[in-house]
Amino acid sequence: MTQVYNFSSGPAMLPVDVLRHAQQELCDWQGLGTSVMEVSHRGKPFIQVAEEAEKDFRDLLQIPSNYKVLFCHGGGRGQFAGVPLNILGDKSTADYVDGGYWASSAVKEAKKYLTPNVIDAKVTVDGKRAIIPMRDWQLSDNAAYLHYCPNETIDGIAIDETPDFGPDVVVAADFSSTILSRPIDVSRYGVIYAGAQKNIGPAGLTLVVVREDLLGKASKACPSILDYSVLNENDSMFNTPPTFAWYLAGLVFKWLKEQGGVAAMDKVNQQKSDLLYGVIDNSDFYRNDVAASNRSRMNIPFQLADSKLDALFLEESFAAGLHALKGHRVVGGMRASIYNAMPLAGVQALTDFMVDFERRHG
Amino acid sequence: MTQVYNFSSGPAMLPVDVLRHAQQELCDWQGLGTSVMEVSHRGKPFIQVAEEAEKDFRDLLQIPSNYKVLFCHGGGRGQFAGVPLNILGDKSTADYVDGGYWASSAVKEAKKYLTPNVIDAKVTVDGKRAIIPMRDWQLSDNAAYLHYCPNETIDGIAIDETPDFGPDVVVAADFSSTILSRPIDVSRYGVIYAGAQKNIGPAGLTLVVVREDLLGKASKACPSILDYSVLNENDSMFNTPPTFAWYLAGLVFKWLKEQGGVAAMDKVNQQKSDLLYGVIDNSDFYRNDVAASNRSRMNIPFQLADSKLDALFLEESFAAGLHALKGHRVVGGMRASIYNAMPLAGVQALTDFMVDFERRHG
Repeated sequence: MTQVYNFSSGPAMLPVDVLRHAQQELCDWQGLGTSVMEVSHRGKPFIQVAEEAEKDFRDLLQIPSNYKVLFCHGGGRGQFAGVPLNILGDKSTADYVDGGYWASSAVKEAKKYLTPNVIDAKVTVDGKRAIIPMRDWQLSDNAAYLHYCPNETIDGIAIDETPDFGPDVVVAADFSSTILSRPIDVSRYGVIYAGAQKNIGPAGLTLVVVREDLLGKASKACPSILDYSVLNENDSMFNTPPTFAWYLAGLVFKWLKEQGGVAAMDKVNQQKSDLLYGVIDNSDFYRNDVAASNRSRMNIPFQLADSKLDALFLEESFAAGLHALKGHRVVGGMRASIYNAMPLAGVQALTDFMVDFERRHG
Repeated sequence: MTQVYNFSSGPAMLPVDVLRHAQQELCDWQGLGTSVMEVSHRGKPFIQVAEEAEKDFRDLLQIPSNYKVLFCHGGGRGQFAGVPLNILGDKSTADYVDGGYWASSAVKEAKKYLTPNVIDAKVTVDGKRAIIPMRDWQLSDNAAYLHYCPNETIDGIAIDETPDFGPDVVVAADFSSTILSRPIDVSRYGVIYAGAQKNIGPAGLTLVVVREDLLGKASKACPSILDYSVLNENDSMFNTPPTFAWYLAGLVFKWLKEQGGVAAMDKVNQQKSDLLYGVIDNSDFYRNDVAASNRSRMNIPFQLADSKLDALFLEESFAAGLHALKGHRVVGGMRASIYNAMPLAGVQALTDFMVDFERRHG
């Protein structure tokens, strides 16, 4: 069979080693004669999985001890409601930076609970899409928090600056498509959250990192499954957690440690994105319209100069084992999502194909 | 290796054939060279899985066409909030029948959104725990709906009556631990919901069956991930669903059809529970304190007359391949959860062990 590289934006590729490990023990885990997904979340064997996963995740991101890690249901979308329901407190507004599709979707959900101060950060510079720098974000005086999305999966736009707004600004950020791909200074944030299905594990699990002084402020209307304090007091087991996803996330964290952790990922992710942007930029056949300063290293959308070739590109790339390159319906064109699990060899295979495709059809 | 039978209350045993099927194709699904958990929920291959799962589920429960089936995040606990948030409408109260631990937990969550009329249905008859019959439930005049739990996983208490309160009473029911174990007359309900991790699949997926005239009434405070209308309008894909759990649920539904469907399950579940209750009742060594009319066929708690033998019973039963028989911490003693995936042979092995244990220690 052709070696397959899967560029899906999420649910996304998992490390091959992790999948093989899970496959091997799927029906008989730890010699128990049962699957890990068949055992109680409150039993010793699973509790050990849960605790190790949290510890490894903390190690990988160097999470300070005054932050809690929660393993939740509901996806990133769930946190679009979870953030205001938990940390709005007695305020009535929050600053929302709109840098793309997901940030904008978070605004829509937040409007159920507050009147957002929306900071439209999207600009065009020299014909390229960009984000205005953090120092130019006009924060309001009475905001409970500032929300932004450091990596826009659909737009391929990243905000790589580290927030530095002083101790009074609580920063909440949707790291769904960039978590664990590079170091994060967690201390600059009040809440970090991420749906698992890109850089953590399978869909159905969401990780929340919350500074402990923000606990205990949930709105009465907050469903318990989204209540950070309830989750924290119950070690993320107030209700039955998505145990198999939690277990797989734990395997991914161990795999990441074996690879050299987040610093090593940072390096290879830079190599991967440099390689792909290089091929795009060295060609008039392919185009990416994001300014260099805001280009995502995780999700790289690109257009063919002649969009009539899109279907052929997708057909031939799929045949070559390069899957899921179709761009999001909102943007069109192509998109290569190259999260941690995508090896450099996969991006090399993609760029080799792109160069060859251009040679044949350019 | 000893044949293992896993009596966990949830996450619970899955059909062995389903697990083996999933294991076989875990790393290469449909010849795609990727796992089912790595593909987009919006791609054709997964959409087919999703649609087939819904169709099979509808077939199994003979769900009328004016009911929608939603595949959600959040577990049964999520629906403790989801039900009031979706169907309270402009009313301020609902009837909540308290028949045990989970029904009571639903009341606690509902109090965030309404003032419940709690109907305490727990009674003691001849020293046995029972539930007052539905005809004696004192419903209020202004309730938006009536909520109850047909099977209490922890207490081992079932309410097997079919609701017959007339067309004006919207019945919402938590079927988490009994769904698919016997036929349900869906038309008697407004909302049926069930966490997957007992009779459907792995933890992290929740099924909701809702009558379509109840859509469109969600509170403004309802997070989108719990909003039945939003889920319905987006084919349960407003956000990324727990795709692997959905896929496994689909395999379980196909397995159920192969077994003869819910009618066949009904029959074997009766045999299984008759066998176990028979051994308990024919002995002074074991005891179950639920009245015959309200005994659960899914979760069978039992006590040893001499609780000093509990630890030995658990140790020896585990060694014999009979896992997870420890009762819930709230109740103590033992509990055997015997959902659809538990074969009659597993209950036979348990009762053989119990008879032998009594012979040796009675």
